[in-house]
Amino acid sequence: MYDLLKTINQGGCSAKIPAKTLENILKSISIDINDKALLVGNETHDDAAIYKLNETQAIIFTTDFFPPVCSDPYTFGQISATNALSDVYAMGGKPLMALNLIMFPSTTIPLEVLTEILKGGQDKVAEAEAFIVGGHTIEDDIPKYGLAVVGTVHPDKIITNANAKAGDVLILSKPLGTGTIMAGQRLGLVSDSDYHNALESMKTLNKNAGTIMNKYNINAATDITGFGFLGHLTKMAKASNVDFELDYENIPALKGSLELIEMGCIPGSAFRNQEYVNTINQTPRKINYNMEMLLNDPQTSGGMLMCVPKDKANDVLDELLENGYKSSAIVGYVIN
Amino acid sequence: MYDLLKTINQGGCSAKIPAKTLENILKSISIDINDKALLVGNETHDDAAIYKLNETQAIIFTTDFFPPVCSDPYTFGQISATNALSDVYAMGGKPLMALNLIMFPSTTIPLEVLTEILKGGQDKVAEAEAFIVGGHTIEDDIPKYGLAVVGTVHPDKIITNANAKAGDVLILSKPLGTGTIMAGQRLGLVSDSDYHNALESMKTLNKNAGTIMNKYNINAATDITGFGFLGHLTKMAKASNVDFELDYENIPALKGSLELIEMGCIPGSAFRNQEYVNTINQTPRKINYNMEMLLNDPQTSGGMLMCVPKDKANDVLDELLENGYKSSAIVGYVIN
Repeated sequence: MYDLLKTINQGGCSAKIPAKTLENILKSISIDINDKALLVGNETHDDAAIYKLNETQAIIFTTDFFPPVCSDPYTFGQISATNALSDVYAMGGKPLMALNLIMFPSTTIPLEVLTEILKGGQDKVAEAEAFIVGGHTIEDDIPKYGLAVVGTVHPDKIITNANAKAGDVLILSKPLGTGTIMAGQRLGLVSDSDYHNALESMKTLNKNAGTIMNKYNINAATDITGFGFLGHLTKMAKASNVDFELDYENIPALKGSLELIEMGCIPGSAFRNQEYVNTINQTPRKINYNMEMLLNDPQTSGGMLMCVPKDKANDVLDELLENGYKSSAIVGYVIN
Repeated sequence: MYDLLKTINQGGCSAKIPAKTLENILKSISIDINDKALLVGNETHDDAAIYKLNETQAIIFTTDFFPPVCSDPYTFGQISATNALSDVYAMGGKPLMALNLIMFPSTTIPLEVLTEILKGGQDKVAEAEAFIVGGHTIEDDIPKYGLAVVGTVHPDKIITNANAKAGDVLILSKPLGTGTIMAGQRLGLVSDSDYHNALESMKTLNKNAGTIMNKYNINAATDITGFGFLGHLTKMAKASNVDFELDYENIPALKGSLELIEMGCIPGSAFRNQEYVNTINQTPRKINYNMEMLLNDPQTSGGMLMCVPKDKANDVLDELLENGYKSSAIVGYVIN
C-alpha cells in the first residue's frame, strides 16, 4: 500500500500559515463590503461566509484543503472532506454541494492513490447528504486534497462565533491532539490503537453535532481546526466580546497525545499558535506546559466548540455522548 | 522585484492533469445524483455546476487555481481571479462571492509577494462586482492561487455547452497562445511587447462577453482554459451532440505565438491535450502542424467560445470588438 505520509513534512491543518501573519496581510488589503445580504463576512474570522438570497434561504460558503494527514489514501480523503464540511455544520447549516480541490503528482504516485482519495471524499460527502458536482485538479509535487463547499441555512437559524453569552456552558465534542498524534506517527512513536483512534475521531462527521446544536438552539459555535483550541477560542472571545473560564481537568485528549507532548513531540505549528494566542491574551499560567501545548495543537477535522445556555447544557452533552461523540465534555464557561 | 516565474516548472492552466486520465478516474467513482434541482452537474463536463434554489434563483459553483503564469505577483493575482470568475460568465451568470485559495511558501518568498497576489485577485473580484468573503491558506513549496466562486443566474437564463445547434456561428472572443507565450517567456524568447500583450489578454474579464451573450440569448458557450481550444470544443461537441467546421484562417493568435511554435517552443500539456483530442476525434489533417498545436495550447484565462444563431452573429461580433475583445472573430460553424 502507498504510504501518503512519506510525501510530506507538514500534514493536515498543521500546514497553515501562522494566524497572525495572515491576519496582518488580510487587514492590509481589506475593503468594506457594503451589502446587507452578506450576513457573515470576514470581519469576525468565522468559519464560513453566509449570504442571504431571500427570506428563507441563505447560502454558506467555505473551503479547506491540505496535504496528507495519514498513510491510507481512502482515509485521507474521508478526513479532508469531513474537515471541509465541518464549517457548514459549525454555522448551523446543511451541506448542499462540493467541489473537489485536487493537487497530485500524477507521474510519481500511482493514480490508484488519487482514485482512493477521491472515493474517501465522495463517501463522506454522501454521508453528509450532499454531492460532489465538479472540481479542479493540478499537477503538484506534494498531494493535497480538500473541498469547496456550499451549504444552506435558514437566515434566522444561523449559528456564529459572535453570540456567546456570559453564563453559557462551553462544550467540546471531540478530543484534542490530532496534530501531535500525526507528528508522533511519522516518527514511529504511536501505537496502532492510538493511531486508529485518532483517525476514527478525524473522520467522524460533525453532522450529528450540527443537528443537536440546531435542536437546542445554542448561542454560538466554532469548529476546532488548524489554529488549535485556544486559537479558535480567542477568535470567538473577540467576535463575541466575552471571556472564558476553562476547566482544564475536563478537556478531552486523544489517547497517547499528552504522553507524546511530554516526550517533546509537538508539531511546529503548535508553537506558532501559542505565539498568536499570546499576542492577544495572557496564556493561562495555572496550567502545566503539556496541557498548554495540547490546547495549541493544530487540529485536523476537530470537534465542535459550543456555547450552550446553562439549562440546556446537560441535555446537549447527553445527546452528543449518545450520537457518536463519546469524548464530549463540558470544558468551561463564558464570563464577561 | 520578486520573479514568480522562477518558482515553477508548469504555470497556469498548463499544470492540469491530462484530461483523459482524469476522466477515467472520475468515471470509475461516479455516482448518480438524483436531485432535479441540480440543473448542471458533472456529466457534460461543463464549466461549473448549477443548482436551482427556487423559481428565480440558481447558484453557479466553480473553482480554479494554479501556480504563477507570470513574473509579477499583482498581475498573477489578477489573471488567476479573472480565470476563476470566467466559468460563471460562461454559464450566463454573475459572480456573487469568492473564497481565496492560497498556497504559499512563507519562509522562502517575501510575504509582500503574497499581499500583491491577493490584491490583484481582490481588484478583479471587485471589477466583477463580487466580493471575497474568506478563503484558505496553506504552506507550500510552490505558490499557487485561485478562487472558489459562487455566482447567481436565473434558472431560465442558463447558458451551457450542451445546446449548440446546427447552423450556429462559432465566435471566439480572445486570441489563443497564452501557454506558448508563457513557455517562451521563461526561456527568454518573447519580446516585452508580446509578453505584455498576452498578460493584457489574460487579465481581461469575460464580464462584458457574458453581458453580450445574455443580451443576444446565444445557444451555447464555454470558456477556453487548460484543455485548449480543441479540448473544450470536443467537450462541447459531445455535450451538444453536434460537430464543428472550423475556419482556421480566422482563428485569432496572440502576437508571437505561432512563431514560437515554429521554433519548437510548445508547452508539454499541448501534447497531452492533442492526445486527448485524438482519442475522441480525428484531429483535422488539413491544417498545418503549427496551427494544430496552437489549437491544443493550454489557455490560461482564455476567451469565450460561443455558438450564436446565424442572424445574430454579426451583432455579437461587433459588440465584442467594441467592448474590450479586439481580437474576437468568427472561427467556424456548428454542423450535424
